[in-house]
Amino acid sequence: MTANTHIPAKTPDQSETVMTEMVLPNDTNNLGNLMGGNLLHWMDICSAITAGKHANTIAVTAAVDNVSFQHPIYGGAIVTLKSRVTRAFRTSMEVAIEVYTETMESQEKVLTNTAFYTFVALGPEGKPVPVPPIQPANPGDRERYDAALRRRELRLILAGRKSPKDAPALQALFGAVQP
Amino acid sequence: MTANTHIPAKTPDQSETVMTEMVLPNDTNNLGNLMGGNLLHWMDICSAITAGKHANTIAVTAAVDNVSFQHPIYGGAIVTLKSRVTRAFRTSMEVAIEVYTETMESQEKVLTNTAFYTFVALGPEGKPVPVPPIQPANPGDRERYDAALRRRELRLILAGRKSPKDAPALQALFGAVQP
Amino acid sequence: MTANTHIPAKTPDQSETVMTEMVLPNDTNNLGNLMGGNLLHWMDICSAITAGKHANTIAVTAAVDNVSFQHPIYGGAIVTLKSRVTRAFRTSMEVAIEVYTETMESQEKVLTNTAFYTFVALGPEGKPVPVPPIQPANPGDRERYDAALRRRELRLILAGRKSPKDAPALQALFGAVQP
Amino acid sequence: MTANTHIPAKTPDQSETVMTEMVLPNDTNNLGNLMGGNLLHWMDICSAITAGKHANTIAVTAAVDNVSFQHPIYGGAIVTLKSRVTRAFRTSMEVAIEVYTETMESQEKVLTNTAFYTFVALGPEGKPVPVPPIQPANPGDRERYDAALRRRELRLILAGRKSPKDAPALQALFGAVQP
Amino acid sequence: MTANTHIPAKTPDQSETVMTEMVLPNDTNNLGNLMGGNLLHWMDICSAITAGKHANTIAVTAAVDNVSFQHPIYGGAIVTLKSRVTRAFRTSMEVAIEVYTETMESQEKVLTNTAFYTFVALGPEGKPVPVPPIQPANPGDRERYDAALRRRELRLILAGRKSPKDAPALQALFGAVQP
Amino acid sequence: MTANTHIPAKTPDQSETVMTEMVLPNDTNNLGNLMGGNLLHWMDICSAITAGKHANTIAVTAAVDNVSFQHPIYGGAIVTLKSRVTRAFRTSMEVAIEVYTETMESQEKVLTNTAFYTFVALGPEGKPVPVPPIQPANPGDRERYDAALRRRELRLILAGRKSPKDAPALQALFGAVQP
Repeated sequence: MTANTHIPAKTPDQSETVMTEMVLPNDTNNLGNLMGGNLLHWMDICSAITAGKHANTIAVTAAVDNVSFQHPIYGGAIVTLKSRVTRAFRTSMEVAIEVYTETMESQEKVLTNTAFYTFVALGPEGKPVPVPPIQPANPGDRERYDAALRRRELRLILAGRKSPKDAPALQALFGAVQP
Repeated sequence: MTANTHIPAKTPDQSETVMTEMVLPNDTNNLGNLMGGNLLHWMDICSAITAGKHANTIAVTAAVDNVSFQHPIYGGAIVTLKSRVTRAFRTSMEVAIEVYTETMESQEKVLTNTAFYTFVALGPEGKPVPVPPIQPANPGDRERYDAALRRRELRLILAGRKSPKDAPALQALFGAVQP
Repeated sequence: MTANTHIPAKTPDQSETVMTEMVLPNDTNNLGNLMGGNLLHWMDICSAITAGKHANTIAVTAAVDNVSFQHPIYGGAIVTLKSRVTRAFRTSMEVAIEVYTETMESQEKVLTNTAFYTFVALGPEGKPVPVPPIQPANPGDRERYDAALRRRELRLILAGRKSPKDAPALQALFGAVQP
Repeated sequence: MTANTHIPAKTPDQSETVMTEMVLPNDTNNLGNLMGGNLLHWMDICSAITAGKHANTIAVTAAVDNVSFQHPIYGGAIVTLKSRVTRAFRTSMEVAIEVYTETMESQEKVLTNTAFYTFVALGPEGKPVPVPPIQPANPGDRERYDAALRRRELRLILAGRKSPKDAPALQALFGAVQP
Repeated sequence: MTANTHIPAKTPDQSETVMTEMVLPNDTNNLGNLMGGNLLHWMDICSAITAGKHANTIAVTAAVDNVSFQHPIYGGAIVTLKSRVTRAFRTSMEVAIEVYTETMESQEKVLTNTAFYTFVALGPEGKPVPVPPIQPANPGDRERYDAALRRRELRLILAGRKSPKDAPALQALFGAVQP
Repeated sequence: MTANTHIPAKTPDQSETVMTEMVLPNDTNNLGNLMGGNLLHWMDICSAITAGKHANTIAVTAAVDNVSFQHPIYGGAIVTLKSRVTRAFRTSMEVAIEVYTETMESQEKVLTNTAFYTFVALGPEGKPVPVPPIQPANPGDRERYDAALRRRELRLILAGRKSPKDAPALQALFGAVQP
């Protein structure tokens, strides 16, 4: 669970990935808007590239969390996905994805979706391999780095692999409001 | 946020959906296993059908949470997705999906993935419309129904639309371990 | 051509497969209805899973017969495919598929299509291998089991691999009306 | 059921369609051969073009029969589909498809598949419209024209819309071998 | 750069390829017309088949030039691609593609697109291998054969691999108008 | 042919588009490398976004030129496409695309492909509409801006819509080497 301090750290910038797509009829639901599943697929590819670049090896999806769809994305819209590693653990990494949508007419980018994907790095035999630690490069990175630990605790609790009483970061969050 | 008590309730059985797929080369990543993004896409379609059947109208993805990938799914495997509504709110529903994988040789179904997708029901003008409440049909449904509220609080807190101090279900969970 | 009496029989229930799909823009013809070829593709996957589960090994399509399209299937409709083995021969199996269509609004399932797909089971070297016999589990299975023999005779006659005079089941059917 | 004698007849040549494809990884099953469902999809498109050209309007799939898969089609193979109208009825047409396969190395075309697809012509309001009769152009066409009637009788009997005793073409075929 | 005079020549007829497609919703842009990228993909497959048949081995795309889109191609249209080798060099070949479009209603074929694709033939180890020379079969072939040399000079100049002063065919074209 | 001096000019930066993709089995040819046609499709989408952003309206492909494939792109590679408007004419724009390829292991970006796509901007009725002129922002842009005119002359000559003697830019290029 601890980061691999013996591997030189990398910054999120080094594996940031930008993917731009246009919503074609092929990608839409029966209302003519981008189908949720297609966006989930694009986000998976974009963040898998980020994870693979950070780990210098192929990385496979281990978890997906907190995907929000705040606005419909209309047919013809331009969709820009940006993914950055928030934190690296021993063989896994969390990647944050932001999705911005604009029309050709307005070109005002609106944040329509965010998500966190977790990947495991695999070596040549398909076994998990250690990944470089992350060195946050700016305050936003630092905040995402800290929050990544809470999300990880939550994932483990929800998966039944950790007890709430072993989750100090979450206790601090909710304990602060206890009488 | 409260369920629509004026609409007759439905049970999760009434909209349960089963989707079976075979992992074809088309669906794989560069290790020959099912690509995460393809499974996310299948889960989106399967759970959108469940939500649409519960709501009696088209439903669009609003959130995706706690998607776990516990085992690789090999090329040629048979994948069975089962989706059930866990709880209905005013215009939204949470759907739980379980993914079972088996090979043609062994035919032992292994639970490889679970996820929660939230949908919003849309009326003819594309505006959110009220959905029937859920009447849990068995203890498993009841447990998922209760947990759905905690997941919803968590989603709202993470989206910054609710304060941790207004989340009694989560406080109870983490407060229980406070000194 | 005779079933493999030395292999323990299986019932159609053991390999029944249910696949649910939603008709997306991606799947439609230029009238906005489900394209015939897409449904044929779904039926092929669904029945290949049934055949593979019955045979405990991969099975490849050998013949397709009597596919009927009785009603158009509109965009947005929910399509449920059910496939069951009707009869097993030495290395081949016939699978019956029924396709039911409903809208999210009405949720009345209408039988829109039926078809028979024949598969050959292949072993590790890609050679045909024997498959378990079928033990019909109910009157409907029994009827399909008997009719499967007539369809098989017909396939062989139409393929020029059998003479009409060696087809007793078909002779009985048409001979009954001879003067 | 009778052809539309008031519409000028057309020959099969006038709507013959040739489609050539290469089997890409995208099209294969888990043995690396062309997936049956993909070929069914290609045949549907190829024969729908033939039917549409004969009818001068869009035509939708009504039935598929006697699809045979005689040889596996390997990845990388070149697949040539040829479709011709065999016979036109009032608003429907039967189309015969032949599929030839060759490798780039040998370039020996082998007949690997045959099938019969039936289409219904639809007018601007989506209602069936009359189609031109077929004028067979050579002995092969003539033979397929005659056999089309037997296949049609068989389709109607199998669909329960005709009794075997009203099928003179089939009675002749099987009656010839009666004692 | 010189053709392989030691290999028996072939005519363009021997590898001509015809591919017919129908424009389905799946293939369209947000105006409902055939998306440029989909046509480029179809042209790539059609001309790769021609090149592979001429070379008797797999051929991969090396260059694409002079693709023109003269008219929009509407949804529902029938698109016919024809590809022929124009000239063979040592290990590469140029293929000319013509795209004709018609509607089911009018069936007047209009030339909507032309393009030149260049392929390199690859042997079993993935290395370039010599290809047969081309023997033009008619005046049109002969004209395309001559022009292919000018296009090749132009490709090499534009790629910075040849100086304009070493391009006699192009000098003749433009020099003719010098004062 | 002249730029629209009455519309405020834009720089290439304002519509530059970056698209990152990973080569999945789905995208490969029978050698396991990226299929040429898939890359042509990705380049079409990437450059159509650039053209649409420059024109503030949908833009459709009018021509594709000088697409070079200098190296095979292996399965699993990361592909980065960058597209920039080089020059705007009255209702059309030329877009240059550069494709860089890297592996997860090495992460050395290699320029594997370049291409020029020309688009026409369409207004609400599907008719060509004027587009803003381009203001080159740096020496590289300036060079591409000048060369765009020569490529345009060449496209018009090759399309038979211009005589070589009316192409001063190309005459200068080839005339310089006349004796």
